[in-house]
Amino acid sequence: MDLESTVRALEKRVGELEDRLAIYQLMYTYGPAADSGSAKAAAHLWTADGVYDVADVAAMTGHRELEQMYEGKTHQALIHKGAAHLTASPHVVINGDRAVATCYSFVFAHEDGNYKVWRVSSNRWDFVRESAGWRIKRRTNRLLDGSEQARAILGRAVE
Amino acid sequence: MDLESTVRALEKRVGELEDRLAIYQLMYTYGPAADSGSAKAAAHLWTADGVYDVADVAAMTGHRELEQMYEGKTHQALIHKGAAHLTASPHVVINGDRAVATCYSFVFAHEDGNYKVWRVSSNRWDFVRESAGWRIKRRTNRLLDGSEQARAILGRAVE
Amino acid sequence: MDLESTVRALEKRVGELEDRLAIYQLMYTYGPAADSGSAKAAAHLWTADGVYDVADVAAMTGHRELEQMYEGKTHQALIHKGAAHLTASPHVVINGDRAVATCYSFVFAHEDGNYKVWRVSSNRWDFVRESAGWRIKRRTNRLLDGSEQARAILGRAVE
Repeated sequence: MDLESTVRALEKRVGELEDRLAIYQLMYTYGPAADSGSAKAAAHLWTADGVYDVADVAAMTGHRELEQMYEGKTHQALIHKGAAHLTASPHVVINGDRAVATCYSFVFAHEDGNYKVWRVSSNRWDFVRESAGWRIKRRTNRLLDGSEQARAILGRAVE
Repeated sequence: MDLESTVRALEKRVGELEDRLAIYQLMYTYGPAADSGSAKAAAHLWTADGVYDVADVAAMTGHRELEQMYEGKTHQALIHKGAAHLTASPHVVINGDRAVATCYSFVFAHEDGNYKVWRVSSNRWDFVRESAGWRIKRRTNRLLDGSEQARAILGRAVE
Repeated sequence: MDLESTVRALEKRVGELEDRLAIYQLMYTYGPAADSGSAKAAAHLWTADGVYDVADVAAMTGHRELEQMYEGKTHQALIHKGAAHLTASPHVVINGDRAVATCYSFVFAHEDGNYKVWRVSSNRWDFVRESAGWRIKRRTNRLLDGSEQARAILGRAVE
């Protein structure tokens, strides 16, 4: 390959590495935003019409509904007792301006001086690239309680 | 450095970054494959002669033995009650077409509506680069139950 | 952009990716060093004057105090019963030769044949680049027990 072609190919490869690490960073921003009660920052990880679908709890659409959840009594009580919303082991597939991540999420909750593993879920995050960077278009969270739906989210990543 | 030398050095550096992120991706594929019961996908993360050595449970060699374990009663019962096989905090050292990762693995198991931290292990993964990409040559898993073996796996990474 | 400018810009971008992955690697070295009882390796993740501030336990300054903690009775008893010090979901911001990471840390402790989630903390790591690579200048660990301080560490990352 001549030098110019090599450089153009490198630009593309570096862009893909940057995308992958930007998506890790976005996913690793979720916990700090949620657990500090930074409702606006948490909500704005999504697109303006973004969806957070947590089947056994609720489905929220758009920044206002998301902010209201993070400002709501249930979430505030949880983080004021002490909680960690952990996003773990992101499997990421990028396709131009779209990307999908499959991972686990956990909620560890502080109760009476001990920590309880409160929620363990499988997650699919659908991302889009906006002018300001990657945002969540839809996040689907299913409790790993033996349901077929929760396993199916994980299975799609390895088909 | 002249431009051509800089470009050749960059190619090498970008290749190393790609390798590291490909190894993260491989390791983060394990959980989704195991917990969705995708026995073939899980087994094929290993080389054809790959070994999964879980001292306190079993040692499996090759795709067929690995598939049989993921299709077996114990594993199937676990994932049908709800389980998360988490691979966490990969410390990765790459050396050409070989690489070693040291990390923790956890199994969170759903039982009677609660989640239990069932297994916590130290792990060493030996990888080789094949024509289709990185594969596991050997994975060694030792329960962190106070045994010297489990600590030794972690110690090797920081010698 | 002409070819030379493109190459210079790529060098900078690749350097930033390498920094980010080097910081992940440093953070993912902590657990293996601590849980294998590699006191010297653990201590030397910090700068010579580095601080580990764990408000509810102690504050250590410099390699000697850090080594003494990892060699001390409490830590040794913990790892000889079986423990996993997990560093999880690093949110990393790099600024030249300084960097800050915000993440969760967990201690899973083996007790009577079971695993207990013993500690769940928010963490801020301040790094500096030394001639030998990135080191920890200060690590601040606050138990997520409902305290404002623990939430504030997470909140700073998303301001």
